[in-house]
Amino acid sequence: METIKIGVAGLGRLGLIHVDNISTLKNVELTAISNLDEEVNKLIQKKYEVPYTYTSYEDMIQNNELDAVCIVTPSGFHPQHIQSALEQNLHVFCEKPIGLDVKDIKDTIETIEQSDRVFHLGFMRRFDNDYLYAKDMIDRGDIGDISIIRSYGIDPIDGLESFVKFAQKSPSGGIYLDMSVHDIDVIRWYTNSEIKKVWATGSNKAAPELAELNEVDIGTVTMQLENDVTAFLVAGRTASHGYHVETEVIGTKGMLRIAATPDKNKVTVFNENGVVRPTLQNFPERFREAYMDEMKDFVRCIRDNTNPSITAWDGLRSTEVAAACQRSFEEDALVEIQYEG
Amino acid sequence: METIKIGVAGLGRLGLIHVDNISTLKNVELTAISNLDEEVNKLIQKKYEVPYTYTSYEDMIQNNELDAVCIVTPSGFHPQHIQSALEQNLHVFCEKPIGLDVKDIKDTIETIEQSDRVFHLGFMRRFDNDYLYAKDMIDRGDIGDISIIRSYGIDPIDGLESFVKFAQKSPSGGIYLDMSVHDIDVIRWYTNSEIKKVWATGSNKAAPELAELNEVDIGTVTMQLENDVTAFLVAGRTASHGYHVETEVIGTKGMLRIAATPDKNKVTVFNENGVVRPTLQNFPERFREAYMDEMKDFVRCIRDNTNPSITAWDGLRSTEVAAACQRSFEEDALVEIQYEG
Amino acid sequence: METIKIGVAGLGRLGLIHVDNISTLKNVELTAISNLDEEVNKLIQKKYEVPYTYTSYEDMIQNNELDAVCIVTPSGFHPQHIQSALEQNLHVFCEKPIGLDVKDIKDTIETIEQSDRVFHLGFMRRFDNDYLYAKDMIDRGDIGDISIIRSYGIDPIDGLESFVKFAQKSPSGGIYLDMSVHDIDVIRWYTNSEIKKVWATGSNKAAPELAELNEVDIGTVTMQLENDVTAFLVAGRTASHGYHVETEVIGTKGMLRIAATPDKNKVTVFNENGVVRPTLQNFPERFREAYMDEMKDFVRCIRDNTNPSITAWDGLRSTEVAAACQRSFEEDALVEIQYEG
Amino acid sequence: METIKIGVAGLGRLGLIHVDNISTLKNVELTAISNLDEEVNKLIQKKYEVPYTYTSYEDMIQNNELDAVCIVTPSGFHPQHIQSALEQNLHVFCEKPIGLDVKDIKDTIETIEQSDRVFHLGFMRRFDNDYLYAKDMIDRGDIGDISIIRSYGIDPIDGLESFVKFAQKSPSGGIYLDMSVHDIDVIRWYTNSEIKKVWATGSNKAAPELAELNEVDIGTVTMQLENDVTAFLVAGRTASHGYHVETEVIGTKGMLRIAATPDKNKVTVFNENGVVRPTLQNFPERFREAYMDEMKDFVRCIRDNTNPSITAWDGLRSTEVAAACQRSFEEDALVEIQYEG
Repeated sequence: METIKIGVAGLGRLGLIHVDNISTLKNVELTAISNLDEEVNKLIQKKYEVPYTYTSYEDMIQNNELDAVCIVTPSGFHPQHIQSALEQNLHVFCEKPIGLDVKDIKDTIETIEQSDRVFHLGFMRRFDNDYLYAKDMIDRGDIGDISIIRSYGIDPIDGLESFVKFAQKSPSGGIYLDMSVHDIDVIRWYTNSEIKKVWATGSNKAAPELAELNEVDIGTVTMQLENDVTAFLVAGRTASHGYHVETEVIGTKGMLRIAATPDKNKVTVFNENGVVRPTLQNFPERFREAYMDEMKDFVRCIRDNTNPSITAWDGLRSTEVAAACQRSFEEDALVEIQYEG
Repeated sequence: METIKIGVAGLGRLGLIHVDNISTLKNVELTAISNLDEEVNKLIQKKYEVPYTYTSYEDMIQNNELDAVCIVTPSGFHPQHIQSALEQNLHVFCEKPIGLDVKDIKDTIETIEQSDRVFHLGFMRRFDNDYLYAKDMIDRGDIGDISIIRSYGIDPIDGLESFVKFAQKSPSGGIYLDMSVHDIDVIRWYTNSEIKKVWATGSNKAAPELAELNEVDIGTVTMQLENDVTAFLVAGRTASHGYHVETEVIGTKGMLRIAATPDKNKVTVFNENGVVRPTLQNFPERFREAYMDEMKDFVRCIRDNTNPSITAWDGLRSTEVAAACQRSFEEDALVEIQYEG
Repeated sequence: METIKIGVAGLGRLGLIHVDNISTLKNVELTAISNLDEEVNKLIQKKYEVPYTYTSYEDMIQNNELDAVCIVTPSGFHPQHIQSALEQNLHVFCEKPIGLDVKDIKDTIETIEQSDRVFHLGFMRRFDNDYLYAKDMIDRGDIGDISIIRSYGIDPIDGLESFVKFAQKSPSGGIYLDMSVHDIDVIRWYTNSEIKKVWATGSNKAAPELAELNEVDIGTVTMQLENDVTAFLVAGRTASHGYHVETEVIGTKGMLRIAATPDKNKVTVFNENGVVRPTLQNFPERFREAYMDEMKDFVRCIRDNTNPSITAWDGLRSTEVAAACQRSFEEDALVEIQYEG
Repeated sequence: METIKIGVAGLGRLGLIHVDNISTLKNVELTAISNLDEEVNKLIQKKYEVPYTYTSYEDMIQNNELDAVCIVTPSGFHPQHIQSALEQNLHVFCEKPIGLDVKDIKDTIETIEQSDRVFHLGFMRRFDNDYLYAKDMIDRGDIGDISIIRSYGIDPIDGLESFVKFAQKSPSGGIYLDMSVHDIDVIRWYTNSEIKKVWATGSNKAAPELAELNEVDIGTVTMQLENDVTAFLVAGRTASHGYHVETEVIGTKGMLRIAATPDKNKVTVFNENGVVRPTLQNFPERFREAYMDEMKDFVRCIRDNTNPSITAWDGLRSTEVAAACQRSFEEDALVEIQYEG
């Protein structure tokens, strides 16, 4: 079996997860890393015995040994990084979103569709065993037709302070584009339907200083879908108990909940606080296996020369919906979504 | 201690619960019942040793022995029944709503406010120990400021067929007026704030025949409150697992859920279906104690000559909000609420 | 309906529960109390409008108005108090145990059996809705034949210090007689079988000072029953999380657990401790309804002139088994039980 | 990094798990398999591209390319297979138990101790994240001193019929040696103490035909430890709901439960059965990660030239205790354990 050689661009928190996962895959080599901070590059090179390191993405993709890149750079660079990698004939794994701007994404999709390389978009929930189990139940009709979906993504509150500092320096794009896209993708995936209308609200009671940035610490979206499903989303940065990603699907024959409580493990503690389930604290912990499985799927697609089940269009749609949510919030109004192409 | 003598009007499912509860209260006598069906009256008279039975409400309230009435007649009669009871100088316990029409309710409130009799409105959740425990947590600040409330009331699906038949004969007023009022009241109670704007949606996938009645088998409402809380409601008639009344409150310092699973009791069963918690099947089972406690509170108010914590205005507000939800659903639009008085 | 007049003897924690319950029953009068502390008697007399108070039990039962007594005096007095009440032709509700000594209990049973009065023994778990629900499941065969039962009764640790002081003054009889009797009764009730052999162990790591009193802060019993069921009991005084009474039944077709977590209510809290279920803190809270229901059953038996389903022999058997457990612990040996009569 | 080459002996259910795990490890090669069934060998060789296949274990270990073997042959062969592998200078991973007979195990330990090769014993629970999390809590003192441990291992009932057939052909050694050894090892690991005395019971109500084989379908053991801990074990073959491995630890400051319900995943289903958690169905599903992690640990020990934390003595002790349980059951008596060496 031939070794697939991958370069990882961007060594932030999520970049390091991909580095670690790629390094453990058999017949796969973590061949290169590119990242601005040379100190970090050295550490990672040593730890994982990485042959090449770069401070420039464009330099890295010139490396002829590479078969593929994994793009974990800031979202604004994604369109350019995807396009130049495909031009170098590299397979591309790219973290969500494809870009910040619908126009850029559309252009990028054109390049993707003209290329014969694999393009894999990082919506890891589609590779999470719990989400897959629920998807199977839904597709088998176990809960009948879907009437309502509810999906939460609430980050731990101990990250709120650093988010505020970060947002004061550079705009996050808003909580819907930053966080709700995962829930939006789940809703499209589970219902096979598009979102027609949205109403977004939000507040910033935990971090009132966000008001002047036009940011919220917790937001909601209510959505009406083509197929008459109503969806309700919460995206927040204020969970005292950990990292709360939960999805509920109400059907005509039953309902199901994924991670109604974000249990860390199978241990229950009985102490002076009551009966306590320790909780998952962050996305690396919650989606550890899913990140691994999506990377395995990327490698499988390269080997089998197939396309992943999730497409760049899915990425575009999520961004379009999230952008409509942001507009709804800003205008305090119901927004009907107009889709591209 | 003097015996308080109560007459119950209307011997439907909920009327019989009140009959049973009143009959077990010490120093309280179930003195009269009024109900159209004489057969039922005879059975109840015998079972509870009721001194007087009537087929006419107006006849019953002429009975000079009575101190109070408990009105469980169809909602359309409530305004008239409340007013004539107060004119007879009777204390009044009335099931929600005060009336179907805002104008009627306003008139009734005038009568109530001119009377020195106790007027007690049947929002039993305010007497439920779980709801009270959560209210205490909120008021103590245990979960900080409220950002979001989610509240579900979903009836068991085995009642859907009979609901459809019933709705075909006489309009229910819509799911929001019929069911969501309880959730609306909880939201107002927990937040001490009024609802500004609503968007209601709904579908009828479990009972498509409801479409021609302009009814839904499950509906949602998203609400914006004066104090920047967002609330999300589900009212439905399609729960396969039983009677699902659940409320979640997300605050800046924590969140809580009341009855996230509608457990029937403390028993867990491990069988071929998995690990199973048997579920509550209906409102009499879920709110058994709350119905008793609200009746005790009614009696206490009469004895102590005090007013209940819940007022007729609370009843009016819930109806106004529910009516706005119905309009939002019909117009498929955001509706801003204009309050009376 | 004639009023039944009851006197309560002993106004400790449990006595006051019975006082409160009796006082709310319709057509029942709390006619007398007897208790050593006159201060307490006055307070209770005032609060509940009790006609008669006594500092002597024997004086109270001379009161000709009384129909029945509720005996909540120290266990050592039970045989004498039961016998003198029956001689006065009074119906008797007596808290467990019937006596501390098998001989005394046997003599008391003789008196009970010669009397036509109702004798009701306070094993409240038999009136608890959760235990009754499980009993129904077992009797219906839902879980097949019983192979194993596990039953825990663990008191909250905040009572440990006062228990130690109490035990230093007067012997408790050991944890098996003091606490395990409830579990023993459940096992006999659920299996319809007698216990053949026991092995009891215990330790005092939370309160080492109990060693010199030959007491333990937590003990276990393993039991073999006639019908080949094995039972495992824990009785303790060290629960940090509250009052933990749990019973598990493993059958050939399924298993069930009663109160696997001692949830206080239906509220779940998500806070910095994790996902938390608040817990029941003591027996009055856990068995509030069961205490009421057993008192209602006592009254029903008096009115209907029937015998309660639980008999004095059940009381004797529990004590015989608990005594065998204590001997097993002291001798560190398997003990076969010889039953009286 | 040098490639470590491993041969796997025995391709039963567990052998195939090890084959699969070894094949995914980086810098590790699944170099050989030995197994009686040539058909199976061919399939596995093809699926995993295994260089060598054998029908004889002794032939396989002659292969000079091998660095290590993974022994998953029937337990009776373990002593001989371990010893001949060590003589060939191979590192050894061996499934529990080291042998069926205490004398054989002692002899094998001597060989192990004279060798400088890694010997790794397959007690996978020591590598399970939930068990490790609880171990950390215990070692940190979070729950104080341990008073009681309860540990269950109950196989799904759908394997009972085939077990009966299997047991009719060849004796299983009894449920304590077959199943309880895992619980015994957990107890020794968590308490750092040895078991002094045991009392074992059992019944065969689900499979009465086991009686004539002197086998039980469910058994219990009560144990007294040197450090005054009492442990209670259940081993069974009758779980209707799946694969139930649960451990509880009661300490002086708190208690914890590992897998009180054997949840398959994070999904909760609300349907006509109630609120349902789907359950784990078998040991490969429950301990998937633990099997992988113990194999990684074996490889790490080989590379680092260190000994695993679990030793052959742990294997001997578990077997000695389980044998004492079997004797206790057969003699229906308390048995004090005499340890070797």
